[in-house]
Amino acid sequence: MERRLRMGMVGGGKDAFIGAVHRIAAFMDGKIELVCGAFSVDPEISKESGKELFVAQDRVYPDYKTMIEKEALLPEGERMDFLTIVTPNFLHFEPAKLAMESGFDVVVEKPMTVSLEEALALQEIVNRTGRTLCLTHTYSGYPMVKQAKAMVREGHFGKIRKIVVEYPQGWLSRLSEREGNAGAAWRADPKRSGKSLVMGDIGTHVAHLAEYVSGLRITELCADLTTFVEGRLLDDDGSVLLRFENGAKGVLMASQISAGEENAVRIRIYGEKGGLEWANEDPNNLIVKMLDQPRQLYRTGNAYAAPYTLSSFATHNTRIPAGHPEGLLESFANIYRNFALTVSAKRVGQTPSPEALDFPTVADGVRGMAFIDTVVKSNESNEKWTKFVL
Amino acid sequence: MERRLRMGMVGGGKDAFIGAVHRIAAFMDGKIELVCGAFSVDPEISKESGKELFVAQDRVYPDYKTMIEKEALLPEGERMDFLTIVTPNFLHFEPAKLAMESGFDVVVEKPMTVSLEEALALQEIVNRTGRTLCLTHTYSGYPMVKQAKAMVREGHFGKIRKIVVEYPQGWLSRLSEREGNAGAAWRADPKRSGKSLVMGDIGTHVAHLAEYVSGLRITELCADLTTFVEGRLLDDDGSVLLRFENGAKGVLMASQISAGEENAVRIRIYGEKGGLEWANEDPNNLIVKMLDQPRQLYRTGNAYAAPYTLSSFATHNTRIPAGHPEGLLESFANIYRNFALTVSAKRVGQTPSPEALDFPTVADGVRGMAFIDTVVKSNESNEKWTKFVL
Amino acid sequence: MERRLRMGMVGGGKDAFIGAVHRIAAFMDGKIELVCGAFSVDPEISKESGKELFVAQDRVYPDYKTMIEKEALLPEGERMDFLTIVTPNFLHFEPAKLAMESGFDVVVEKPMTVSLEEALALQEIVNRTGRTLCLTHTYSGYPMVKQAKAMVREGHFGKIRKIVVEYPQGWLSRLSEREGNAGAAWRADPKRSGKSLVMGDIGTHVAHLAEYVSGLRITELCADLTTFVEGRLLDDDGSVLLRFENGAKGVLMASQISAGEENAVRIRIYGEKGGLEWANEDPNNLIVKMLDQPRQLYRTGNAYAAPYTLSSFATHNTRIPAGHPEGLLESFANIYRNFALTVSAKRVGQTPSPEALDFPTVADGVRGMAFIDTVVKSNESNEKWTKFVL
Amino acid sequence: MERRLRMGMVGGGKDAFIGAVHRIAAFMDGKIELVCGAFSVDPEISKESGKELFVAQDRVYPDYKTMIEKEALLPEGERMDFLTIVTPNFLHFEPAKLAMESGFDVVVEKPMTVSLEEALALQEIVNRTGRTLCLTHTYSGYPMVKQAKAMVREGHFGKIRKIVVEYPQGWLSRLSEREGNAGAAWRADPKRSGKSLVMGDIGTHVAHLAEYVSGLRITELCADLTTFVEGRLLDDDGSVLLRFENGAKGVLMASQISAGEENAVRIRIYGEKGGLEWANEDPNNLIVKMLDQPRQLYRTGNAYAAPYTLSSFATHNTRIPAGHPEGLLESFANIYRNFALTVSAKRVGQTPSPEALDFPTVADGVRGMAFIDTVVKSNESNEKWTKFVL
Repeated sequence: MERRLRMGMVGGGKDAFIGAVHRIAAFMDGKIELVCGAFSVDPEISKESGKELFVAQDRVYPDYKTMIEKEALLPEGERMDFLTIVTPNFLHFEPAKLAMESGFDVVVEKPMTVSLEEALALQEIVNRTGRTLCLTHTYSGYPMVKQAKAMVREGHFGKIRKIVVEYPQGWLSRLSEREGNAGAAWRADPKRSGKSLVMGDIGTHVAHLAEYVSGLRITELCADLTTFVEGRLLDDDGSVLLRFENGAKGVLMASQISAGEENAVRIRIYGEKGGLEWANEDPNNLIVKMLDQPRQLYRTGNAYAAPYTLSSFATHNTRIPAGHPEGLLESFANIYRNFALTVSAKRVGQTPSPEALDFPTVADGVRGMAFIDTVVKSNESNEKWTKFVL
Repeated sequence: MERRLRMGMVGGGKDAFIGAVHRIAAFMDGKIELVCGAFSVDPEISKESGKELFVAQDRVYPDYKTMIEKEALLPEGERMDFLTIVTPNFLHFEPAKLAMESGFDVVVEKPMTVSLEEALALQEIVNRTGRTLCLTHTYSGYPMVKQAKAMVREGHFGKIRKIVVEYPQGWLSRLSEREGNAGAAWRADPKRSGKSLVMGDIGTHVAHLAEYVSGLRITELCADLTTFVEGRLLDDDGSVLLRFENGAKGVLMASQISAGEENAVRIRIYGEKGGLEWANEDPNNLIVKMLDQPRQLYRTGNAYAAPYTLSSFATHNTRIPAGHPEGLLESFANIYRNFALTVSAKRVGQTPSPEALDFPTVADGVRGMAFIDTVVKSNESNEKWTKFVL
Repeated sequence: MERRLRMGMVGGGKDAFIGAVHRIAAFMDGKIELVCGAFSVDPEISKESGKELFVAQDRVYPDYKTMIEKEALLPEGERMDFLTIVTPNFLHFEPAKLAMESGFDVVVEKPMTVSLEEALALQEIVNRTGRTLCLTHTYSGYPMVKQAKAMVREGHFGKIRKIVVEYPQGWLSRLSEREGNAGAAWRADPKRSGKSLVMGDIGTHVAHLAEYVSGLRITELCADLTTFVEGRLLDDDGSVLLRFENGAKGVLMASQISAGEENAVRIRIYGEKGGLEWANEDPNNLIVKMLDQPRQLYRTGNAYAAPYTLSSFATHNTRIPAGHPEGLLESFANIYRNFALTVSAKRVGQTPSPEALDFPTVADGVRGMAFIDTVVKSNESNEKWTKFVL
Repeated sequence: MERRLRMGMVGGGKDAFIGAVHRIAAFMDGKIELVCGAFSVDPEISKESGKELFVAQDRVYPDYKTMIEKEALLPEGERMDFLTIVTPNFLHFEPAKLAMESGFDVVVEKPMTVSLEEALALQEIVNRTGRTLCLTHTYSGYPMVKQAKAMVREGHFGKIRKIVVEYPQGWLSRLSEREGNAGAAWRADPKRSGKSLVMGDIGTHVAHLAEYVSGLRITELCADLTTFVEGRLLDDDGSVLLRFENGAKGVLMASQISAGEENAVRIRIYGEKGGLEWANEDPNNLIVKMLDQPRQLYRTGNAYAAPYTLSSFATHNTRIPAGHPEGLLESFANIYRNFALTVSAKRVGQTPSPEALDFPTVADGVRGMAFIDTVVKSNESNEKWTKFVL
């Protein structure tokens, strides 16, 4: 990279959870700096946030429109290069649209938009403007997830038969949206969150993980959504039977009332010759279970000899030696780093490496929103199977 | 107990897997002895088996009918007290019927019969004869499973919302029934096995576990069964969405093509206040996850102080001190021991203790067969939900 | 085997812990029956125990001497074949001596005797009488321990460099010997237990494990013993630096004041090419860590293909399929079964198989007592290293 | 903080491992920026490194002396605020001395110096200049390590009796220092590394961890050091018996020939009422084992209710919600962040919070060097115990 990329940020004021995560992920590798922001709808909070973040006060803006307009007037190399959008779901589309149409690349939190319609419109804008849109499906940034994908792609497990993904959480076991939890409040509000709480907030993560690792697309599904907590306006639990394009079957479970669970994302894939298992809460282990062989633990950062050599996609996304655990922040930072490498290469007319290009984009965002739509449609239907059309 | 109980056995000749397991389970506590058997349809194998098992040659019978007739003529205290049936599914009903009608109690492998009709008929015979029928749903014999049940029953987790049970295996990833695997051959044969391979062989285990631990009954379900291995006559994988009587939701997964898995039975239950997790491959740990508290590992055999004191149902079924792992054979032996305590108490007119009475019976067998029927019906239906009527 | 072996028992009355374990282990495979006993010094308890164990009242004896004398007068095939000794340490030698001199084989709890002198005397009696003495070093009966030994022996790990064994327990964190705990009372009494509590009760287990798995002998050591609980008459914690015959180094830790630990026996061995790890509380996993390769989990009961095929010593000692956990009782039963196979073979002039012969004998008992002696001597010395002479 | 702190760096050129780790740790929280460096003795590599790191070319210096001199001439707020030293051990003292005497604070890799004499001299300089010296004992930055320390300090476990620390690695199982591994080459060279390879490189980490978590000082020890790999000039394995000031006993194991191990740092501490266990390879779990209670897993980032509330020292050092794993880089970043908070507070005359002050300092560095000295002295002695004098 010729120089650091300059990041602007919409949302992410002090005390906001996910904005801080984006910043850590962006800063970690020293390749991105924060130059401007519209951190909050409350101008005082925005200013204070800017100060805490060492952003020049004249580049703390009252809203994303002003920011994009003003930044666009600054000279290249001074103005922001890309905009990170960490507002609630219903406030993703407009800033993303304006940013791209004003010549900026975009990083956006998942789910990409508040509706499938918006997602499709965003895809059209990406296609039209040629900008790069990066969607932060965190779990796809882990080295061992990339190793899993590489092994599936290389046929290590034979034809894939079964895919099980799950994301149990317990943090919405109570009516927290009425108890002062701001993050719960907008997520549980259909206007700000979208059609489904559990699928929008966490279901799309594991739907993406299933397709990303297996390389297979969901073709139809059968969903059962439930609202367990009285007074809640959206679902907080969902189980989905899946069918994939090659005949594989699957199950997706997403739950926010699995009391006592933290972020227990897990994926298991079984093929004709063996299976794999990976879990977010133990992310440096990829368990490989081949027929007639002892189980194997592939672990992040090892320089295994052939035929066990880790994929370049795994090693490219690893920072420290084996046995020194990397976590979610590093996975998140991998997405930012790959985005930065890709944008920087494009800027100087180079072709990014396949490893750099390996981050979620607008296409993943569209599939995510279509997944939510299909699940909600299936949930309302008495038909067993609902096609996943896209 | 006044004296050892005397066991006869149908099936379980040398090299048969499950017969050996039953014998170890029966012998372990020194409360049961094997006195007679019709171990094989091949009289030579039966004789050799009898010899290896130190059974008197005049009590090795050519078939179960002869055995029951002849034994019935022996004096009490010499003749067998009960009959263990470890033949393929289609050969459970007739010997169980004849045994009970001849005054013998019965232990039978799961699934109880080859069809729901037979199961209902067997229930009628139990009711009519007053005999005791014990069904060996192995996993319900583990101390930590009983601890889980006790904690749910006592309201530790509040109202139950979500139940996830799974049984992935990989041993039928190939067409083993055509490759000389006798156990696979009869299990994959609809005539000898029943309507569903995966549900009959392992699905009923976890359906039972779900209902046993939660104390809740499945009321409707939505199933997707698949035959992945070409040439196989029955399904080898199934996923089922569940609904329970109190509004709880669930998922049941049973699979015999999850390549690389062994016997990874697992149950997770979530209530309003917390959740639990237990796994067959790590059976001495019960993971308890309460909201706002550190996770807890309840472990077999500990003399915890109040309020953590293990349930009498757990301690009654434990043989050795904490940290010395007990396994499947002890769980299986718990079923036999409780059956023996119950039968012995009844024999002398005593009321068995609640702990002794806690083993699966004909009612569980009927529900298991109804579960298989309902799953198969759902699989064939385009309706999303099929009622579990019983 | 031609017939079941007949077991007599000294000690192991009702409520005694280890006697019950021996009986389960002996009964499990249906190859051994209990025919007589002197279960307690209290004749009432002995009688009641006999009744509960379904032993004929005329073969419940007031003491071991009477038992051995009377049984010796019974005809072969009726009299006991071997004597199991499950009394406190100071009561091992005399019954073992008398039994062997009267023509009976012997199974004895560890540590073999109360002193090295007794151990050497017992070895002389074994040599003189030709009887078989089996010492129940439980942990050496596990299939995955035997697999570990086989892999070391076959050079899988190259030359061995480092051996770490540990046995932390917490059950003597308080002065339980004064609080009515009978097992603690005699173990903490030098007259009944021997020179060292922690080494006699658990240290010899892991010293045996280290030598058994590695095939290497300890040649010198440096020990630090401590009595942490005030009022206790013997040590309750010990750490020992070890040196082995081939230049390997090691550490042995045994502790009964590691509060909160159960029976966390663990062994780790490292060679030039890789290492292994095994733990009693997770006994069906053998973790194999080769340089430049993913970690491997060898698991009990698998029919791995070459080059991973489990050793015949592992499979011979396994009862059920992979994924169905076997535990301490099965490990214990392996020792009894191998003893029974060996004794039965010798009885009819056959040579037992190497797998059957693989159980701890008087030689292991002598080394165990010498280990205790050397540790105590080292603890009292200001010299860093004390030779392990034998 | 008023503004970002400005970091200079000695060592850490491209391809150097630990320099990159320091930069990630420093950058992650956006509170520190890299402004200058003398990254390599090779001026070309230094320049290239500076370019890759986006450091202005006129602040890439040929050596640390020039850098310190030149930077000292720049105005406050432009010149570096502190110097990070990531050179081999023998090159720590001189730059640290010069930096502090020139008014700069210092972050230095462990072990602090190449000898105890240098360490004591550095302590004198710190005392004289009043500068802040931060020593990067990485493992002490983990939230769950801080939780462990807090629980010990608050008496949760009662009086401490036993401390076991270990650091097995396998990366020096071969003579890598002769096979082009630069990191191995200087570490295995007594002139550049110091008296002990294994204790300097990793032993001091766990010695520090033992004293940090327990709050107890080692008073005497008994060590056995070994060089297993032929041709190596320093030891590669060591085991040490420990005695602590309050009568507690312990064991420290450090090994670089534990083939197949990665960075398996582990600490176990046992008190009168219970014990704890923590491991670097699973760093978000603190296992708490209280007498008579189920085991507890305290996990990073949870908002437990009283009495389980996590210590402010744990939460202060946590960035993301429970279930999203944090790893070594976050632990490392905690040390940098606390150092930055402390230095920034001091700069404006404020008192840093106890949480901010909780990072290793020159006193820890002196104890580390004294530990190495004492271990080497003990290894060469025939006396069992060698006093740890300081």
